[in-house]
Amino acid sequence: MTIHSALTKLSLLLGDRLSRSKSDLNNHGQSETYFPLTPPNAVAYPDTTLEVSEILKICHAEDCPVVAWGAGTSLEGHALATQGGLCLDMIRMSKIGDLRIEDFAVTVGPGITRESLNQELRTTGLFFPVDPGANASLGGMAATRASGTTSVRYGTMRDNVLGLTVVLADGRIVKTGGPVRKSSSGYDLTALFLGSEGTLGIITSLTLRLQSQPEAISAASCAFENMDAAIETVITTIQYGIPMARIEFVDAATAGAFNAYAGTKLPETPHLLVEFHGSERAVAEDAKRFGEIVEEMGGTGFDWSDKPEDRTALWRIRHNAYYACLALRPGAFALVTDVCVPISELAKAVRETRADIDASPLIGPILGHVGDGNFHAILLIDRENEGEVAEAKRLAQAMAERAISLGGTITGEHGIGLGKRHLMAQEHGQEAWDLMGQIKHALDPTGILNPGKIVP
Amino acid sequence: MTIHSALTKLSLLLGDRLSRSKSDLNNHGQSETYFPLTPPNAVAYPDTTLEVSEILKICHAEDCPVVAWGAGTSLEGHALATQGGLCLDMIRMSKIGDLRIEDFAVTVGPGITRESLNQELRTTGLFFPVDPGANASLGGMAATRASGTTSVRYGTMRDNVLGLTVVLADGRIVKTGGPVRKSSSGYDLTALFLGSEGTLGIITSLTLRLQSQPEAISAASCAFENMDAAIETVITTIQYGIPMARIEFVDAATAGAFNAYAGTKLPETPHLLVEFHGSERAVAEDAKRFGEIVEEMGGTGFDWSDKPEDRTALWRIRHNAYYACLALRPGAFALVTDVCVPISELAKAVRETRADIDASPLIGPILGHVGDGNFHAILLIDRENEGEVAEAKRLAQAMAERAISLGGTITGEHGIGLGKRHLMAQEHGQEAWDLMGQIKHALDPTGILNPGKIVP
Ligand SMILES: Cc1cc2nc3c(=O)[nH]c(=O)nc-3n(C[C@H](O)[C@H](O)[C@H](O)COP(=O)(O)OP(=O)(O)OC[C@H]3O[C@@H](n4cnc5c(N)ncnc54)[C@H](O)[C@@H]3O)c2cc1C
Ligand SMILES: Cc1cc2nc3c(=O)[nH]c(=O)nc-3n(C[C@H](O)[C@H](O)[C@H](O)COP(=O)(O)OP(=O)(O)OC[C@H]3O[C@@H](n4cnc5c(N)ncnc54)[C@H](O)[C@@H]3O)c2cc1C
Repeated sequence: MTIHSALTKLSLLLGDRLSRSKSDLNNHGQSETYFPLTPPNAVAYPDTTLEVSEILKICHAEDCPVVAWGAGTSLEGHALATQGGLCLDMIRMSKIGDLRIEDFAVTVGPGITRESLNQELRTTGLFFPVDPGANASLGGMAATRASGTTSVRYGTMRDNVLGLTVVLADGRIVKTGGPVRKSSSGYDLTALFLGSEGTLGIITSLTLRLQSQPEAISAASCAFENMDAAIETVITTIQYGIPMARIEFVDAATAGAFNAYAGTKLPETPHLLVEFHGSERAVAEDAKRFGEIVEEMGGTGFDWSDKPEDRTALWRIRHNAYYACLALRPGAFALVTDVCVPISELAKAVRETRADIDASPLIGPILGHVGDGNFHAILLIDRENEGEVAEAKRLAQAMAERAISLGGTITGEHGIGLGKRHLMAQEHGQEAWDLMGQIKHALDPTGILNPGKIVP
Repeated sequence: MTIHSALTKLSLLLGDRLSRSKSDLNNHGQSETYFPLTPPNAVAYPDTTLEVSEILKICHAEDCPVVAWGAGTSLEGHALATQGGLCLDMIRMSKIGDLRIEDFAVTVGPGITRESLNQELRTTGLFFPVDPGANASLGGMAATRASGTTSVRYGTMRDNVLGLTVVLADGRIVKTGGPVRKSSSGYDLTALFLGSEGTLGIITSLTLRLQSQPEAISAASCAFENMDAAIETVITTIQYGIPMARIEFVDAATAGAFNAYAGTKLPETPHLLVEFHGSERAVAEDAKRFGEIVEEMGGTGFDWSDKPEDRTALWRIRHNAYYACLALRPGAFALVTDVCVPISELAKAVRETRADIDASPLIGPILGHVGDGNFHAILLIDRENEGEVAEAKRLAQAMAERAISLGGTITGEHGIGLGKRHLMAQEHGQEAWDLMGQIKHALDPTGILNPGKIVP
């Protein structure tokens, strides 16, 4: 019962699809952020659900940790094999299966990325709306309950996954949900696996809910003198029920980072970046109403465009925000942290976070999917410098505790990973956290699936 | 360790809020449908979460079954105490707590009914959208993952419950979620309890997501020559993305029942009843586009009205459909069954169900929330007549099996209760159903919560 004997058996099963090359181990041992390199003992590249089941049977019998790997873009060290063992890279399971246009549904392998999926759907009139910016895998997005710029309109992974195939720790295969809009048939197993970060089972296929490509889209950015005016604009827009497809906040530091990285010439003040989806008329009407709010709040530069190239340029800038911020301090790593608060507390939460970071020696732009009450800080550090790491952790801790005290959550979308497990009892209470532990124990009694994550 | 000694202790705790009167027992021993009378041994009326916790500690120690009771409107015998024990009537826990208008959220006790809640919210500009027709309790709606006429637009209980307070079988109190739009913080406990039919815990408070009261509403009904034309109209409307707030199908038999019960003068053919929500202009535009589809499909009588009294009249008729159908056969009981299928299979599913019932001696109108692919049959029987009961069960079984074979679910919204547990393995597969059993065992190891329901 060792990792070693598991790998011997796995190697027989998978041949050269079990890799132990140094570069492969290292590629699967680092995350996008400041966490130190933590290579697994081997990387497996399964092809089918049945093969994943065989792999898990072996690892279960041999007590070998198994950590799934999608695109490795998660920000809290979720996919790091901190107890060694097997990394299960899902990249080869990336096929598009059953496409049901009339049902607005498609079944895909977990390894497909959202960009490839939408590329494939382009000519169908449909698209998959959840957009975390990064070109994440659908399996990883499901496992982190991801969301993103469009969630204010289309919801998160919770709302857009209709069913799953999951392999349990002992190799049993379960199917949950299906291409149907709703069901009251028993416990909601789909929802249980969404956000479980590979600790309850390995997702080997997903049935996704699709949306109609909107008839018309327009987008715009606008600048505000200060953060409060920008956030008030968001709150008012939400109150008025203007159906925004995206409403993104970036602070002055982020605007500065865009200018330096992408050569834009934005005023270095807080901005909102917005998008409207609908019929030609609805989009025009919504943009007009939004423009009136912007004007009332003293915003400037609101000038909407329905040209695809303008829109693409705008969202390319936004999606590169992380890399633009990193470039503010060459060579730095980032501690990226996100919280979500009730909309009514958003202005206070962002203002106090900004003040906290301003009082610290670290650079830390703030930006976020503010239509959901969700925002991020990107704290730039030298990860070898213990003092800086500690300071970034202190800021992230304060941000999470503030979110809890305002009725919010320690993470709106990035998840728990390594970075936030110590906050779980504080947010949920010991009883609820223990309950998560009981569920984990029922599904994975020997604890081989992504050990050390989420539960007590 | 008996029900008897539990009741002795409960009586000390609750005084006259523990009732053993015959009428109380009988009231809590019957459902709206054909299931036989099954009175519990006593009915408790708790006032607070802490009191529910004390009650469960006693019942846990004494191994006494506990079955929660909301408004008793569930249709599959969910709330019947088939193994005796305590019925926990939540009616006294009906307060509206924290109303957060800016956050579109409110916290309520589980006993409040949706009509009272919306009555209370009337002046706030907000409303709670899930509408199962019956004046159900919010706790019961959460426990059955209910939905209804407006779910095509606003979603089901799954989408509209943000957080819960739940008392577990051993009396532990857990809180899940909160007044925030999204979270990736650990397992989705809220979703786990939604639809668990009182088998995993007792819900003692709910934080609900509210919606803005629409600026304009208009409603209409229209008649079709045959079922296929009506269903095709629905499918086309959904495909075009016209944002319907309600789109309800009733078949010819139901239209006839309305005429007999409510004195309407509808043509006795299939109908759609629809509603639009939005700005004045959007509602007019949507109604116009829908009207064009109706015309194309040969529908008649589409004549929309934005007068509140017309609307109220229309939905009163729809909400009384069940009683109108019952009146088709005075003295009869009903076996009411619902399924949900992918939209692309809706026409086939409804057509074959209609043919099945037509070939049977039973009267059985069909109607449903067809925008979700969800429909119901109301099978009228003499519940003392074994042959009729068996025939109704046979029809319901065929309907459920057809739904499974078309990629759908055995229940879109009513839930499992007593009527559908034998179909669970068929829908979900033995592995997934066993998994539900493992979760149940982890949370309620001695099985006191609503025993005999949902799990193996
Ligand atoms: C620039 C940038 C911007 C980002 N913006 C957002 C954002 O807006 N919103 C957002 O939500 N996130 C955002 N993220 C974070 C990240 O993109 C998401 O967390 C994403 O969902 C991770 O997907 P992945 O495929 O990269 O998963 P990975 O990082 O590979 O894995 C994440 C977790 O899921 C598990 N997992 C992966 N695949 C499976 C599977 N098949 N079965 C079971 N478990 C599995 C892993 O074990 C791990 O615990 C951003 C990241 C970057 C780098
Ligand atoms: C005329 C009519 C029309 C209907 N139309 C619809 C419809 O359109 N859509 C739909 O979804 N349903 C419909 N129903 C069914 C019913 O209204 C729903 O199932 C509703 O959700 C039941 O709520 P209730 O308060 O009556 O629950 P009850 O019948 O009292 O209980 C239902 C289940 O929930 C459990 N429960 C109740 N309260 C709690 C609690 N606080 N904590 C834990 N468990 C609890 C009970 O133990 C039981 O298992 C209809 C019923 C009728 C009579």
